[in-house]
Amino acid sequence: MANYVELIAKKRDGFELSASEIEGLIEDYTLGHFPDYQMSALAMAIYHQGLSDAEMRTWTRAMLYSGRVLDLSELGPGRIDKHSTGGVGDKISLPLAPAAAACGVIVPMVAGRGLGHTGGTVDKLESIPGYRADLSVAQFIECLRANGCAIIGQTEEIAPADRRLYHLRDVTATVEIMELITASIMSKKLAEGIEGLVLDVKVGTAAFMKNLKDARALAEAMVSVGEGMGTRVIAYLTRMEEPLGEMIGNACEVQESIDILRGKGPSDVRELVVTLGGAMVELAKGVSEEVGRQAIADSLDDGRAHGVWSQMVERQGGDINGLPVHSREVVVTAPRDGIVQGVNGLEVGLVGVQLGAGRTRSDQMIDPVVGIQMAASRGTEVSKGDPLATILLGSSGEASSEVTERLANAFELGDDPVEPQPLIIDRIG
Amino acid sequence: MANYVELIAKKRDGFELSASEIEGLIEDYTLGHFPDYQMSALAMAIYHQGLSDAEMRTWTRAMLYSGRVLDLSELGPGRIDKHSTGGVGDKISLPLAPAAAACGVIVPMVAGRGLGHTGGTVDKLESIPGYRADLSVAQFIECLRANGCAIIGQTEEIAPADRRLYHLRDVTATVEIMELITASIMSKKLAEGIEGLVLDVKVGTAAFMKNLKDARALAEAMVSVGEGMGTRVIAYLTRMEEPLGEMIGNACEVQESIDILRGKGPSDVRELVVTLGGAMVELAKGVSEEVGRQAIADSLDDGRAHGVWSQMVERQGGDINGLPVHSREVVVTAPRDGIVQGVNGLEVGLVGVQLGAGRTRSDQMIDPVVGIQMAASRGTEVSKGDPLATILLGSSGEASSEVTERLANAFELGDDPVEPQPLIIDRIG
Repeated sequence: MANYVELIAKKRDGFELSASEIEGLIEDYTLGHFPDYQMSALAMAIYHQGLSDAEMRTWTRAMLYSGRVLDLSELGPGRIDKHSTGGVGDKISLPLAPAAAACGVIVPMVAGRGLGHTGGTVDKLESIPGYRADLSVAQFIECLRANGCAIIGQTEEIAPADRRLYHLRDVTATVEIMELITASIMSKKLAEGIEGLVLDVKVGTAAFMKNLKDARALAEAMVSVGEGMGTRVIAYLTRMEEPLGEMIGNACEVQESIDILRGKGPSDVRELVVTLGGAMVELAKGVSEEVGRQAIADSLDDGRAHGVWSQMVERQGGDINGLPVHSREVVVTAPRDGIVQGVNGLEVGLVGVQLGAGRTRSDQMIDPVVGIQMAASRGTEVSKGDPLATILLGSSGEASSEVTERLANAFELGDDPVEPQPLIIDRIG
Repeated sequence: MANYVELIAKKRDGFELSASEIEGLIEDYTLGHFPDYQMSALAMAIYHQGLSDAEMRTWTRAMLYSGRVLDLSELGPGRIDKHSTGGVGDKISLPLAPAAAACGVIVPMVAGRGLGHTGGTVDKLESIPGYRADLSVAQFIECLRANGCAIIGQTEEIAPADRRLYHLRDVTATVEIMELITASIMSKKLAEGIEGLVLDVKVGTAAFMKNLKDARALAEAMVSVGEGMGTRVIAYLTRMEEPLGEMIGNACEVQESIDILRGKGPSDVRELVVTLGGAMVELAKGVSEEVGRQAIADSLDDGRAHGVWSQMVERQGGDINGLPVHSREVVVTAPRDGIVQGVNGLEVGLVGVQLGAGRTRSDQMIDPVVGIQMAASRGTEVSKGDPLATILLGSSGEASSEVTERLANAFELGDDPVEPQPLIIDRIG
């Protein structure tokens, strides 16, 4: 291995690192030979100098091969996953995976936990009593063979370099680096042994990417890295200002997902499931976008998606009848007559965290039953005293006046009519 | 303490840190609460975004007060030290401290060890058998009271934050940051309880600062920080291309220093001692530069400086009669007739390290007896076969043909006459 200090200085001064230099760095980082204090200096240098496309591809590949790369070819073709960059109320994966599997897609989904204002798919599923997200690889493959889909949490085996680097970046102000975000997401997803990937890159004040330019750059980078490694990638840029759907929490988002799986539920959630699922069918079956969308919609409406969901939950140990239900409600009302000009999804997400539905540190526990149910959304006309949202609490839960006020303030009331905004902004790849 | 990550992000994005933020960071770093992996990310952010003058001053002050600050006021006024940014053959401190003390200056010098191509004052002194550089503060003060000067090594008590940060910067490619170099030097020097400081900022290929612009900026920053904290500072910019004097090593540099203390020795070394020492007298006594220079020159010529030196060495336990002498010589000769166009001091320094006179890692041992004696310098006319330099070795020492060749190649021979270059380039402050 070359001199680490020279490599840090090389990047610091804006030069390109060679493939073997990056491979050596990531390998040594995984083994603990390249220490955190050097990696954080390198990450900060990358923040200021960037990575070239070639460097980003090599970095991704090195992180991918820092751990186990699943070989699921025995399951046959059509192995497609979806990844979202995260938003408030984003429960899409829950109905999406069974719906796509009902259309013949194999969905080997390794999902994350929530941190900050966005929730996590694994946290939501674990609100179902008994649900096991910690399957062994052999059990994961067995579930995929039986159901066509399975959703588990991240394992120690997959992309260990990313796991270590992710924690380091979180505490060294080096999270917001597009090339390293790309490498982090893509190394984990490509380790799933998939042939194609659909990305939901969220844009807006409640998303990680606040503006369209950054979101587009991230989407293009991920498509480029994926395609460069032989994996077909379709990315959607989607709006993330207001929460998705009516429910923000864990058990309540599972309940809303079940509504979607029964052909009901909020139209924005259904639209995203149909769009992203349609693209998965498109990649798996080689059909058109429209045919893919229709297949997903049919699976939601004819009960097949719900059937796959029930099998998946049961096979992963979950008892859906035991899903906890809130026992107390606190209604937040409109302080005046008006039209909802917008809902600050970031604030709603943070209120959820404050109530215990999410966490700010990775070692915090969450309360599966608490949540927020939206009663009004962008464009809703309300009279003073009408409900804006309901806080859902367990038997001992409390909502302070500070919390109810903060939630009420997340609704911007005005007098002007509101133009609808498209949920799906663009498609790339 | 504020959130560390936010502070790193603030500097990363080019904003100024407040005094209390910097003080908190340095205090927590000293206590081990602000970990290395965050400090190295912050240092790399500072590399790219810089520090304002106010930030640099606060940073210096915080590092200064991370440890013990000596109060030497009991010794009376006129407490002045000198610091050099380091060069090849730079033994100036050895004759300088006694010469200044002979002129009534009190010189409480805390010196460093060599690393890389430049030697260290403490290493040179320790080639004198018995010399103790690890005096307690009480012993240090006792020596100063008796002799007017003492030279010791860095202690754990003085600027511990700098000690830790210096090692971290060394391994994270964050050494070359002018503001942090300033803070590092000035925090250690101001902790000596001095009233004034003379700086020798070396410029050239064999110096840390390669060009005049960077050297001037560093000198101005150090003068500004020192004056801002009530310490008078005079900085000289001096040429560092060729080695200083004829000797490069440890015991042999002590021998050359004794020559200077007896009014003899190479003119460039004497000129620097007279200039820097003159400025120390100027600061201590309020006399003119010229009067200061004359006082130092007199002390070298009339034996008083040598007398103080002998007392200092003896009082610090050294037996000057036991100074080791080389037992073998390898002469490096000119491969052609010509005029020495220049001598690459960096290469000469690195050959010294290769021979064992210096170290590349702080835990390496050095051999006090090995060294290089220059026989030719810039402008010397030589015939083929004339000596260029002599490698000085102990009884078991060897000089490989690779080493002799490398040393010979450090001498650039040509046919053109060479213009003399001034040793003292400028004075600031």
